[in-house]
Amino acid sequence: MTVLALTGGVGGAKLALGLAHVLEPDDLVFVVNTGDDFEHLGFHVCPDVDTLTYTLAGAANPETGWGRTDESWHFMEALGQLGGETWFRLGDRDLALHVRRRALLAQGRDLTEVTAVLARSLSIRHRILPMSNDPVRTQVHTPDGPLAFQHYFVRDRCQPTASGFDFAGAESATVNPMIPFAGVRATVICPSNPFVSVDPILAVPGMCESLLETGAPVVAVSPIVGGRAIKGPTAKMMREMGMPATTVEVARHYVGRATHFVVDEVDAESEGRVRALGFETAVAQTVMTSLQDRVDLARAVLDFVA
Amino acid sequence: MTVLALTGGVGGAKLALGLAHVLEPDDLVFVVNTGDDFEHLGFHVCPDVDTLTYTLAGAANPETGWGRTDESWHFMEALGQLGGETWFRLGDRDLALHVRRRALLAQGRDLTEVTAVLARSLSIRHRILPMSNDPVRTQVHTPDGPLAFQHYFVRDRCQPTASGFDFAGAESATVNPMIPFAGVRATVICPSNPFVSVDPILAVPGMCESLLETGAPVVAVSPIVGGRAIKGPTAKMMREMGMPATTVEVARHYVGRATHFVVDEVDAESEGRVRALGFETAVAQTVMTSLQDRVDLARAVLDFVA
Repeated sequence: MTVLALTGGVGGAKLALGLAHVLEPDDLVFVVNTGDDFEHLGFHVCPDVDTLTYTLAGAANPETGWGRTDESWHFMEALGQLGGETWFRLGDRDLALHVRRRALLAQGRDLTEVTAVLARSLSIRHRILPMSNDPVRTQVHTPDGPLAFQHYFVRDRCQPTASGFDFAGAESATVNPMIPFAGVRATVICPSNPFVSVDPILAVPGMCESLLETGAPVVAVSPIVGGRAIKGPTAKMMREMGMPATTVEVARHYVGRATHFVVDEVDAESEGRVRALGFETAVAQTVMTSLQDRVDLARAVLDFVA
Repeated sequence: MTVLALTGGVGGAKLALGLAHVLEPDDLVFVVNTGDDFEHLGFHVCPDVDTLTYTLAGAANPETGWGRTDESWHFMEALGQLGGETWFRLGDRDLALHVRRRALLAQGRDLTEVTAVLARSLSIRHRILPMSNDPVRTQVHTPDGPLAFQHYFVRDRCQPTASGFDFAGAESATVNPMIPFAGVRATVICPSNPFVSVDPILAVPGMCESLLETGAPVVAVSPIVGGRAIKGPTAKMMREMGMPATTVEVARHYVGRATHFVVDEVDAESEGRVRALGFETAVAQTVMTSLQDRVDLARAVLDFVA
């Protein structure tokens, strides 16, 4: 019986790492957001897939939250001197992954196969599946019109006001056929941004239905703790879209799409209101600082849905 | 009145640098071999254009004879770990030039325009013109069949026996239309490899004729000194093709394609035999160690054809 873990960037990757320490490669499959993928400098950039890949490989950069450890920036420095675009930082070693990905894609392999080859070359044993092999591109609605996600997130540092999001291409995208819906014992929605990390995954036609039709619990872990986002613009986005930045609102966002919900200990008093929305609930320490925190939360979530 | 300098890799770039110190940007145009260009790791690699570019920018790597100064190799190291090809070395900073070139080519610019943009970004004031914007690919004939040039030169370290060469695509290539044949006061064939650096340039239909039709001297500087090549496989190739590795044989190779020939002081006794082949001749110190050597040879060659 398999556990599916839906994940996006840094926040989700923390719980993903915990789950990878608790579950064997045959028992855990990661389904990763590709809504913030984009073409840049001639490379196919997959920020969330790479964050998870580097995290599972023990090569994620703890300072930046993206990219690799032991990284250098000579390429970027020289590119700037040559008049190239430098707002999206690709380190010298990270660049190797992108050159390799392009070469593999050029061989006609799909993103799933390419991701698997790269993961294997980094000795990763768990399966990392892009949500779809088809392009889905998250766009942020701002007062100045739609912004491609990385332009909003990296170039503009999340400063524009976000009034909403859409996922270009989602309607015609196909759910990754490698996702083993049959035999799923639980789906874990990691504490990633609900709007730009999880929603793109659930926006692929059939994804949400297939998860619920497994009959297994779909458990979401709140990325909002004590009214704040552990990392990233989740709380800011909620305020800008006119919803209070609370764990209850996150739960409301998942009504009809998840069955179980985990609130942090500091939000224990909200558990009743979340349950009132129709969720099975659990309270746990969801702020993950150490590896032990990640493993403990993974265990708590799995026990909850066991 | 313009001087055209035909050049290939390191050997030619030495005299090219000397010429650039002696002649103003308006008075000197470089015509560069692109026969050893190739597509690698998804990049368009132009070894000779880049060697000249980095040399004129003062950024050429003096140890390697290719690539940049102050280079690092983290990309290559990581690429190897990911199972990528590492036989052709692209440094972290050099990679920026290749990413930039691809971006500019992807905008639909031709190689001449792209080369000019990159040269300007490195503050180079002289014009660097690829011999053609069309692909010409040097192939080396070996006992095991034809070998793409970089595979022969870099991957196999010139070890295969070379029985001859051909320049795939040359027959349908067009001479770079930016070459200012009108108003040429001299053409200098730099001391590059006659077979794989200069011949591809002269193999572009109309190039040789256009140079001779200017009526201006076409002066070749011997890359063979005292029976040895200063650098590279020229002497080895000559022996393998059954010709003695002498300056006289190099001159014979240019019969009907050049009008003037410069032999090194150590080959002064060969001057008569070269003159007998129909060349105007001069003797000069052609081995360039210092910058002053480069400038002195440039002056000597220009005085010779003045």
